[in-house]
Amino acid sequence: MLRIRQAVVDDIPLLLEMIVEFATFEKLLEHVTVTKESLRRDGFEGQPRFHAMILEWDDAVAGYAMTYPFYSSFAGPGLFLEDIYVRDVFRGKGIGKAVMAEVGSLALREGYWGVRWEVLNWNQRAIDFYLGLGATFVEDWKLVFIEGEALRKMANGGPQ
Amino acid sequence: MLRIRQAVVDDIPLLLEMIVEFATFEKLLEHVTVTKESLRRDGFEGQPRFHAMILEWDDAVAGYAMTYPFYSSFAGPGLFLEDIYVRDVFRGKGIGKAVMAEVGSLALREGYWGVRWEVLNWNQRAIDFYLGLGATFVEDWKLVFIEGEALRKMANGGPQ
Repeated sequence: MLRIRQAVVDDIPLLLEMIVEFATFEKLLEHVTVTKESLRRDGFEGQPRFHAMILEWDDAVAGYAMTYPFYSSFAGPGLFLEDIYVRDVFRGKGIGKAVMAEVGSLALREGYWGVRWEVLNWNQRAIDFYLGLGATFVEDWKLVFIEGEALRKMANGGPQ
Repeated sequence: MLRIRQAVVDDIPLLLEMIVEFATFEKLLEHVTVTKESLRRDGFEGQPRFHAMILEWDDAVAGYAMTYPFYSSFAGPGLFLEDIYVRDVFRGKGIGKAVMAEVGSLALREGYWGVRWEVLNWNQRAIDFYLGLGATFVEDWKLVFIEGEALRKMANGGPQ
């Protein structure tokens, strides 16, 4: 039986463990810099920056999901699904679909126009799953970011 | 002379006018559903969902920029640059670069790991500008969203 519950402070070590698992699966482990301390500060104190859900199957932890509200200047407030992760041995039980139903319900309850997320282009199983839900894949936008030394140079008026 | 100032409630009609201009430039006008009322509620009341800047060149309004904080489960809090728009007649004056410096400074002041944004893949002038700033283009992620009837079906447990 699946149970989806809101993460609490005591779940922080578990949450970090699963973030690391998920990053390993995505071949992005070297990008994980969050810590138990930063997760506590950003998710469980003051005005939380994210909302985390723990997925339980019977007495076992089967995965997690994380969302935050975003804003579209054209369409208004929406829900960003930062992560949805189901541990390998719990796949094929309909957990992903149930979590997406929960995420969709949350968005509708909040009056958001929709839910956005991102998927790795080699993760065909995930892509097929999202297509089956009726999601739309955006083909004409590129994602861009700047960090580190390039960010500092930009803040100082551009590359010298 | 460029002046970058924080948008205030009295700027809402101007902000909406420029959002419509920008959406027209991006060939996305049919997606604009925000109103003066929703901009007020989401940007200027309670806990604002976005931060807007008005760009002025001498006594004229030259454009706007809009940001909001986002959260990466791997890297922590970052700044999302939702829009940067410089009106056509004000291009070539270094306004974009000055705004990106302001956005970068804002991110560093807040202790964010970086700035993210999106660019239309046919907007080569913008792409070249961002490359010149040292930005990284993400090639292995797809953007996905769900809205409307598909969202309602997902919230109810998936397509029937």
